[in-house]
Amino acid sequence: MRQHLWTEPHHDGSPRYVSTPAPALGDVVTLFLRVPSGSDVTRAVVRTMVDGEQVLEPAVVDRRDHRDTWFRADLRVENVVQPYRWLLDGGHHGYQWLTGTGLHARDVTDSSDFRLTTHPAPPAWAQDAIVYQVFPDRFARSVERPYPDWAVPARWEDPVLAAGPQRSKQVYGGDLDGVRAHLDHIASLGADTVYLTPFFPARSTHRYDATSFERVDPLLGGDEALARLARDVHARGMRLIGDLTTNHCGSGHDWFRAALADPAAPEAGFFFFRHHPDDYVGWFGFRTMPKFDHRSAELRRRLYEGPDSVVARWLGDSGLDGWRIDVGNMTGRLGALDLNHEVARSIRATMAAARSDSLLLAEHSFDASGDLAGDGWHGVMNYAGFTRPMWQWLRAAPDLPLEHGKYLGIPRLPGRAFAAAFREFAAAAPWRATAHAMNLVGSHDTWRIRTALGDAGRAVVALGLLATLPGIPMLWAGDEIGLEAWSGEDARTPFPWQAPERWDHATLAATQALLRARRGSEALRRGGLRWFVVDDDVLVFAREAPGETVLVQAARADHPPVRLPAAYLGSHLAGMASTADVVADAVGLLTLPPGGPAVRMWRLG
Amino acid sequence: MRQHLWTEPHHDGSPRYVSTPAPALGDVVTLFLRVPSGSDVTRAVVRTMVDGEQVLEPAVVDRRDHRDTWFRADLRVENVVQPYRWLLDGGHHGYQWLTGTGLHARDVTDSSDFRLTTHPAPPAWAQDAIVYQVFPDRFARSVERPYPDWAVPARWEDPVLAAGPQRSKQVYGGDLDGVRAHLDHIASLGADTVYLTPFFPARSTHRYDATSFERVDPLLGGDEALARLARDVHARGMRLIGDLTTNHCGSGHDWFRAALADPAAPEAGFFFFRHHPDDYVGWFGFRTMPKFDHRSAELRRRLYEGPDSVVARWLGDSGLDGWRIDVGNMTGRLGALDLNHEVARSIRATMAAARSDSLLLAEHSFDASGDLAGDGWHGVMNYAGFTRPMWQWLRAAPDLPLEHGKYLGIPRLPGRAFAAAFREFAAAAPWRATAHAMNLVGSHDTWRIRTALGDAGRAVVALGLLATLPGIPMLWAGDEIGLEAWSGEDARTPFPWQAPERWDHATLAATQALLRARRGSEALRRGGLRWFVVDDDVLVFAREAPGETVLVQAARADHPPVRLPAAYLGSHLAGMASTADVVADAVGLLTLPPGGPAVRMWRLG
Repeated sequence: MRQHLWTEPHHDGSPRYVSTPAPALGDVVTLFLRVPSGSDVTRAVVRTMVDGEQVLEPAVVDRRDHRDTWFRADLRVENVVQPYRWLLDGGHHGYQWLTGTGLHARDVTDSSDFRLTTHPAPPAWAQDAIVYQVFPDRFARSVERPYPDWAVPARWEDPVLAAGPQRSKQVYGGDLDGVRAHLDHIASLGADTVYLTPFFPARSTHRYDATSFERVDPLLGGDEALARLARDVHARGMRLIGDLTTNHCGSGHDWFRAALADPAAPEAGFFFFRHHPDDYVGWFGFRTMPKFDHRSAELRRRLYEGPDSVVARWLGDSGLDGWRIDVGNMTGRLGALDLNHEVARSIRATMAAARSDSLLLAEHSFDASGDLAGDGWHGVMNYAGFTRPMWQWLRAAPDLPLEHGKYLGIPRLPGRAFAAAFREFAAAAPWRATAHAMNLVGSHDTWRIRTALGDAGRAVVALGLLATLPGIPMLWAGDEIGLEAWSGEDARTPFPWQAPERWDHATLAATQALLRARRGSEALRRGGLRWFVVDDDVLVFAREAPGETVLVQAARADHPPVRLPAAYLGSHLAGMASTADVVADAVGLLTLPPGGPAVRMWRLG
Repeated sequence: MRQHLWTEPHHDGSPRYVSTPAPALGDVVTLFLRVPSGSDVTRAVVRTMVDGEQVLEPAVVDRRDHRDTWFRADLRVENVVQPYRWLLDGGHHGYQWLTGTGLHARDVTDSSDFRLTTHPAPPAWAQDAIVYQVFPDRFARSVERPYPDWAVPARWEDPVLAAGPQRSKQVYGGDLDGVRAHLDHIASLGADTVYLTPFFPARSTHRYDATSFERVDPLLGGDEALARLARDVHARGMRLIGDLTTNHCGSGHDWFRAALADPAAPEAGFFFFRHHPDDYVGWFGFRTMPKFDHRSAELRRRLYEGPDSVVARWLGDSGLDGWRIDVGNMTGRLGALDLNHEVARSIRATMAAARSDSLLLAEHSFDASGDLAGDGWHGVMNYAGFTRPMWQWLRAAPDLPLEHGKYLGIPRLPGRAFAAAFREFAAAAPWRATAHAMNLVGSHDTWRIRTALGDAGRAVVALGLLATLPGIPMLWAGDEIGLEAWSGEDARTPFPWQAPERWDHATLAATQALLRARRGSEALRRGGLRWFVVDDDVLVFAREAPGETVLVQAARADHPPVRLPAAYLGSHLAGMASTADVVADAVGLLTLPPGGPAVRMWRLG
């Protein structure tokens, strides 16, 4: 990838470039291509595939100004998902293709083609959402309750035991009324959506081993506490998302107990018994988490088909606005049996019927493009396209060697590796899926961002990318105050409300400024993405909405000053958050500051 | 892509690197990775996805010699199609991924992952096949027959009318006994498989508008002529492939006439009537080619389901060894209806039952990776990954501008563009699909290769790539004698048997030498593919079978001599075909000749 990209022709799936974000079959969609005046492209054609065959639609010049020529082409949507790309003529390249990964001066496969999808769009609120992730046992406690028999009682200040037999058994007693008591904190960050990891009863503190999907764990305050929380969240205009294991349940689950008790029970068909009752398939082989067999119609009916299903029942004004599906990449998949897309599609259909503006996200730690066909998950957790490449760019400490469990190590890579990876993973899915991917810098399953990077300043840059790139930002409770941890278990530290002296208040202020800047900017929430400068230590990109453009500079370290032509950007960049303005010099150059680590942003005039 | 690649770690799907080309579920497959001694890789891990989740299998050192370290890893096949890639550690890169597109020093999507597929393998003969394409009306005539009413009678020497109302109506009277009379010619080229474009009765000379699938067109000699041809072909140990339109039939077809006559007839359900009888969907809107609606069970039964279907009935010792499916990219696809994979899968299942070693290829002019999941087409015509990139590298005349119909123009691109495109399209499908892609330099649907390139020498280089790269080579009758044509229709020139003085005998000799070299070399037919040198004007690659390695040099022009280290290749390259030997000099370098256009090949000691 070249360093300076602002003269490259550009297109993406955002409203500046696509007239109709959610077209129906038969609609005519108008596509726009921006060709900056420094480009040698003289002609543009849209290449689409209709019924498997190439169709070419010549574009016309829609308008010209001193910066850009805008080409326009009309495309009729004839297929459920219709891919397209631009064919550009002119200059010394012969022709070039423009796809989601940029310009290609040779033929390329369709994997990075843009896509028009006729599947129903995600709810309108989702693209504006900023999510705050809460692990209920560790966020805040409203009252003391008796401990269950499986628990290792812990006081709020006790260290988390990340290994050994007490792992995931320490109950600190956080609860839903505790979350409710801290909605001011969450809102003060700019977040408007609370994502709760599981609240069903279980035999562990992570609760991914539910013993029932019928009720909220009494340890968390029970059903009434959830209703109270939902009502308060909704009264603020905020949203609430739950966490469901459709891949498995706990071995103490009512359904599994019924299955164990009677091989002829309908519940016996919910699981994969190799030999009843003692040999069955568990998630990653864990006997505590028997895996669901989605071939069972009764399981589907109870879990996610129809208004009486678990998925539907917890949605509502006194309940949830959406679900995050645990191990969405694995659910419905076992060997030759792959019902993953059917499961996702059924959950989505049930949710749409039960609460028309509900959001369906899935955990996915890898390339999810094959699972984002359009009628399943609205989006997935973007470990693959955002989190890991970002860790690799921003890590300050030496390379973390390979052996670090699920997430491998962290090699230190230049900025172009981050930009190229983000772009490639985004291009593998429809724009809509990228815009609804849940970006994160870390979670209850990973090291803390500050620990992974080894530098507080770079952790703020990570939060800056979270706040400014396409995707739904998810902030894991505690990252805003600079908590540290070397593993997911370790990261489930009780939030130190009692010890504000241990908070990193500078990080807190920076987080607030960054996420609030996103809240206040249509471009940051809904705009397209145009890379301007891609270098080892600094990245500059623009987010562009129809009425607003924001320029973002992210630097991991001090770097030579970046100079941009005022002819493309205007002579005055108005600083946002705590960024100072930048004014063009006498020869028409804008010089961005050279210091780092830092994130800066400007609104363009 | 760097110029010199021979120190890069390498893996592909060929037998040197994968123990089990056609594994079953549960099989353990041994994978090998070659790390040349010049590489700084010290450790290798296989990354696979099982049930959607990443699984890492550390590799061990299997053996070392003075050239390479070979890593080995065992992988259990748990999913129907199981992707994998290599994770390489060592050196200054942090880690790197090795996928089908080579080394990546950042995270990449799964689109170029290697794949183990448990679907049944193509027939064993197919990977050794060299196909000769015959357009029956224009290849050779055994007797004179009366012309049908729709025909424009033509004498063998008449020019083809490539445009105007007589287009595709000129009948020259070639027939199947004509083909039979020239099997010596076909065999002399090294070809062993005859692919006939349609032989069913029709109202055009291309016969893609069949009026029946019940009989061979009497104009071609009828059923008995096909049986005679099949018997003679088979007696030589050769194979015969037919051409079927499953996307549409002709408007004169018995089924369509029945459909027109009675809207209640079962045949009315075979087509897409918008308004019976006058408004229906035709291929590309042509009323002469009504499109099939594969939702009709009766259509499926007649056309390709079961032993009485068209697909099954024409297979056999007195019939065909396989089918080429016309517009395989479009068949079964119309708007929101996409039954393409179901159609392909059904055809394949029927063929497997009717003739267990039959081959199913499909026309596909674009990225076919989405249609090569493994249980449909064995392979497709490789316009996208071979033909077009090859045209772009080898074109001698100035860039052909964009407007040239279906195939666009031809920009002139450097060798690295060809190598990168070939590699990317190959990597998007399982190795097996790449090995069974039907490569071609041109067909009855394109300009002639010599015309497209504008140079006889470069056309031989094109044939050289056809003969030496993975994929089933298909030679379009007439290319071996240097015919010229500017369009597909124009390319359907009657074969000038009567005028050998118009043949380019040098091209004929070169074609024979190149294709016979493939016939005689397991490496060229079945080997892996390792790129050694990628430059503007010259490409050097190795084809590697367990017992044989062939080095190929393809040059489009004179170029600086390529020097390769004898330490990697041995000190003596034994020339094949008409290539002279190359011997290492005193400092251990092998110098390949600098002249071009040329194709040279050597067997490594």
